[in-house]
Amino acid sequence: MANMEAYDNLMNKMKEIIVLGSATAIVQWDMEAYMPPKGIMLKSEQLSQLSKMIHRMVTDPEVGQLLETVEKGSKALDEVQKRNASLVRRAYDKETKVPEDLVARLAKQQAISVEIWKKAKAANDWKMFEPDLQKMVNLSRERSEIEAKVKGIPNLYDSMLDEFERGLTSSLVTKVFSELRDRLVPLTKKCAEASKELDTSFLSRKVPIETQMKIATDVATLVGYDTVTDQAGGRIDQVEHPFTTGYYDDVRITVKYHEDNVSSAIYAILHEAGHALYEQNLNPEWMYTPVGANASYGIHESQSRFIENLIGRSPEFLRYYLPRLNKLTGGIFSDINETAFIKAMNLVKPSLIRIEADEVTYSLHIIICYEIEQDLFSDKISVSELPQVWNEKYEEYLGLDVLDDTNGVLQDTHWASGYYGYFPSYALGNIYDGMFLEKLNKEIPDWLKQTEKGNLLPSLKWMARHVHSESALYDPADLIEKITGNKLTAGPFLDYIEKKYSTIFGF
Amino acid sequence: MANMEAYDNLMNKMKEIIVLGSATAIVQWDMEAYMPPKGIMLKSEQLSQLSKMIHRMVTDPEVGQLLETVEKGSKALDEVQKRNASLVRRAYDKETKVPEDLVARLAKQQAISVEIWKKAKAANDWKMFEPDLQKMVNLSRERSEIEAKVKGIPNLYDSMLDEFERGLTSSLVTKVFSELRDRLVPLTKKCAEASKELDTSFLSRKVPIETQMKIATDVATLVGYDTVTDQAGGRIDQVEHPFTTGYYDDVRITVKYHEDNVSSAIYAILHEAGHALYEQNLNPEWMYTPVGANASYGIHESQSRFIENLIGRSPEFLRYYLPRLNKLTGGIFSDINETAFIKAMNLVKPSLIRIEADEVTYSLHIIICYEIEQDLFSDKISVSELPQVWNEKYEEYLGLDVLDDTNGVLQDTHWASGYYGYFPSYALGNIYDGMFLEKLNKEIPDWLKQTEKGNLLPSLKWMARHVHSESALYDPADLIEKITGNKLTAGPFLDYIEKKYSTIFGF
Repeated sequence: MANMEAYDNLMNKMKEIIVLGSATAIVQWDMEAYMPPKGIMLKSEQLSQLSKMIHRMVTDPEVGQLLETVEKGSKALDEVQKRNASLVRRAYDKETKVPEDLVARLAKQQAISVEIWKKAKAANDWKMFEPDLQKMVNLSRERSEIEAKVKGIPNLYDSMLDEFERGLTSSLVTKVFSELRDRLVPLTKKCAEASKELDTSFLSRKVPIETQMKIATDVATLVGYDTVTDQAGGRIDQVEHPFTTGYYDDVRITVKYHEDNVSSAIYAILHEAGHALYEQNLNPEWMYTPVGANASYGIHESQSRFIENLIGRSPEFLRYYLPRLNKLTGGIFSDINETAFIKAMNLVKPSLIRIEADEVTYSLHIIICYEIEQDLFSDKISVSELPQVWNEKYEEYLGLDVLDDTNGVLQDTHWASGYYGYFPSYALGNIYDGMFLEKLNKEIPDWLKQTEKGNLLPSLKWMARHVHSESALYDPADLIEKITGNKLTAGPFLDYIEKKYSTIFGF
Repeated sequence: MANMEAYDNLMNKMKEIIVLGSATAIVQWDMEAYMPPKGIMLKSEQLSQLSKMIHRMVTDPEVGQLLETVEKGSKALDEVQKRNASLVRRAYDKETKVPEDLVARLAKQQAISVEIWKKAKAANDWKMFEPDLQKMVNLSRERSEIEAKVKGIPNLYDSMLDEFERGLTSSLVTKVFSELRDRLVPLTKKCAEASKELDTSFLSRKVPIETQMKIATDVATLVGYDTVTDQAGGRIDQVEHPFTTGYYDDVRITVKYHEDNVSSAIYAILHEAGHALYEQNLNPEWMYTPVGANASYGIHESQSRFIENLIGRSPEFLRYYLPRLNKLTGGIFSDINETAFIKAMNLVKPSLIRIEADEVTYSLHIIICYEIEQDLFSDKISVSELPQVWNEKYEEYLGLDVLDDTNGVLQDTHWASGYYGYFPSYALGNIYDGMFLEKLNKEIPDWLKQTEKGNLLPSLKWMARHVHSESALYDPADLIEKITGNKLTAGPFLDYIEKKYSTIFGF
């Protein structure tokens, strides 16, 4: 078979897998958003079956044969085609070593563990969740051990990190996280000191859910995430734990509303819209091929956290949005001046819930999760010890008493889902954002001035051009270096955050 | 391989197909209920890919080999196992003759045609729809010609009927439909005459959508369709054209609300709940095997129309429900007496929209669709002539001017979906109901008295026992004969309807 014919055949097979993957995302979305409660066992069968099918298609011996033909004649391929072939090779070599039965059991257990986690979280009942978490840890370990072997990564948790952020190691994470800690802990203290008299109680003023839904649509539209026109490729649904899912023309975000916390909804929408825009803005020419995908979870978080924090929590955006928010709510904060609003929306205060943490303490939550995962997968601690270890670390790092497991070890869905090694992506997202910001400030010095006028396009377009349109053409470390000219460094993020908060709180 | 081992392996393969089918149903439901508009092309790819996968799995040569082993030792099988093997054989022989490519193109075109139909219907623009309907007709014809050949059915439209109602022929349909027409046309006239002074304008009183949603949940709960408890296996969503979809523990219904037509929502919910209860009450021991399915589309319609009409439009149910409806709406009909309410809810009046037609004229709509389909697939008329033919028949059979295509040839989704030969199932449902009713009246003479007290269980349980729990163990004609002792006859339905309406309208 001619080389290009083999390449085309290989890409046809990839399209089938990618389309089936996008259908699987709908089935998962349905589980979180609309499934009736009795449907959970059937849903676990559906997700298990779909995972099996995808695994079968990826490991199809014909894929291996086509790959060999393509690789033999790789000189004829352009850069994008080479990247596609190498992404298929990576998946093929790994998945052919993972037994189908394990794939099926993992998918089934994931659906069940997530369902039990929801109930256990609602009931504040760790013991209810523990057995299914243990199963998930065991199955994930089984899979990760195979992956680590295929990739030749000696440390199990390093291999887990590598699944979410290609090339990332725990020694690198530990290094940058200690830089974060060294500067964020004192910054947290300074901010807390400077804002200890601050009254932010007005943020708990009640805003009816219907009004919050209008605000959600408004901020989504403002950042260019369309859920309303007849060309909309997005939508907003309510779930217990917000997430984003989809592919190119159909990417959906989710939110949880709290009547007494309108800012929670605003930042959830900004965060998830950041994820969604990345997927929607992938290079359209690469749709249905492996390179038509995001670069990594860390890059993904950089996109969500850029819109949430670097835009959404900037004084410039807040000055623009306060009158608009007052208009939408009939003047909920009409007695609050700009400075008080900006300070309140940027209040730095150690708190129990990661997803509601401020920009400064946020990374400390991630460091806690990271250290616990490391210990769990090097057998220093067991699943049953997780609540105790969790509580001790929150006391040590954030000075907080964890009152119950619902607001402690049970708060997040990641472990129920088997996403071990994911948490560091969030902090990496911050670090990447710092590096992007340096570049963006040089190239478009007035982007924040534009933001203050309600024109968010300059920074959004910059991200679309430099990050989204590159899609999965590079591994994350290479993409970062291509865009910023530098290797991973926490410096720019720490410089940004120290400057921003010392300005806001005047120290 | 031992016979029972082959049987178990075959059933494992069937479980995979059935589970994937249930996932496909979710993806289709999503298309109708929640997909953002830009997602249609991706959705058509998803549905096409899923159809391909299912087709590949059904036609897997291993299925053929296992089937042969099972059939050779069929003496060892019990009745249910034999039925399972024969249902697989039927599907295998047919699907192995249908090219995968045709399956994929049909699924893709179906998604696109349905989307275009929605737009064309909203815009009253037949020309917008015609090209995609033509494509759907061509593809369906291509598939049906193959099916007809495999089944040895000489007439193309007969084979289409057979796909929805095994063993049904157009000569039988023509015969029973002419019986229907002969007695329904004069009955329509008598009813219209007897009710010409009737004022039913109160039925258009406005009921807010939120209140209608509560009424929907109320009537669903009343017939035992659970959408509210933490064991619920159902839910209600809003769509353009109501349908039911799902499998055993997760079966969902849909509705369209009109502020000035609360009875439309009530009957849509009763109808779809009838479909849903059938799927939820299938024999649980047979879940994930071929026999764990409905018997046919006609039997399905008998279940939906039984709850909609024989229960929901009975004077007994209406007497029970009127006070309850008044309570839920703050007395919307508190000035209306029982007799006026019963007459209004049973008003017989030729109308343009099938799904809102009364019980008497309903079958005339079906006869129109049936005759048009027959002519279309015997090339007596072309796709472009459909609007004209439609309008002529509505004039001839119902004495009505069709004002626009939205309320005419564009009203239904069936042709956009490629469901040619489906319409007769609705009228068959009526006929089956008449036959069931004869038996039910003998076995539980007081079921309507119970209904009047709000106890709907006697007739619902009778249906679950005689129809639902038999699942797909028999072909529809055999099931009808087993339950009623008779072959298909329209007599009991016509007797029922003449008696009911002469009593209500006093002639």
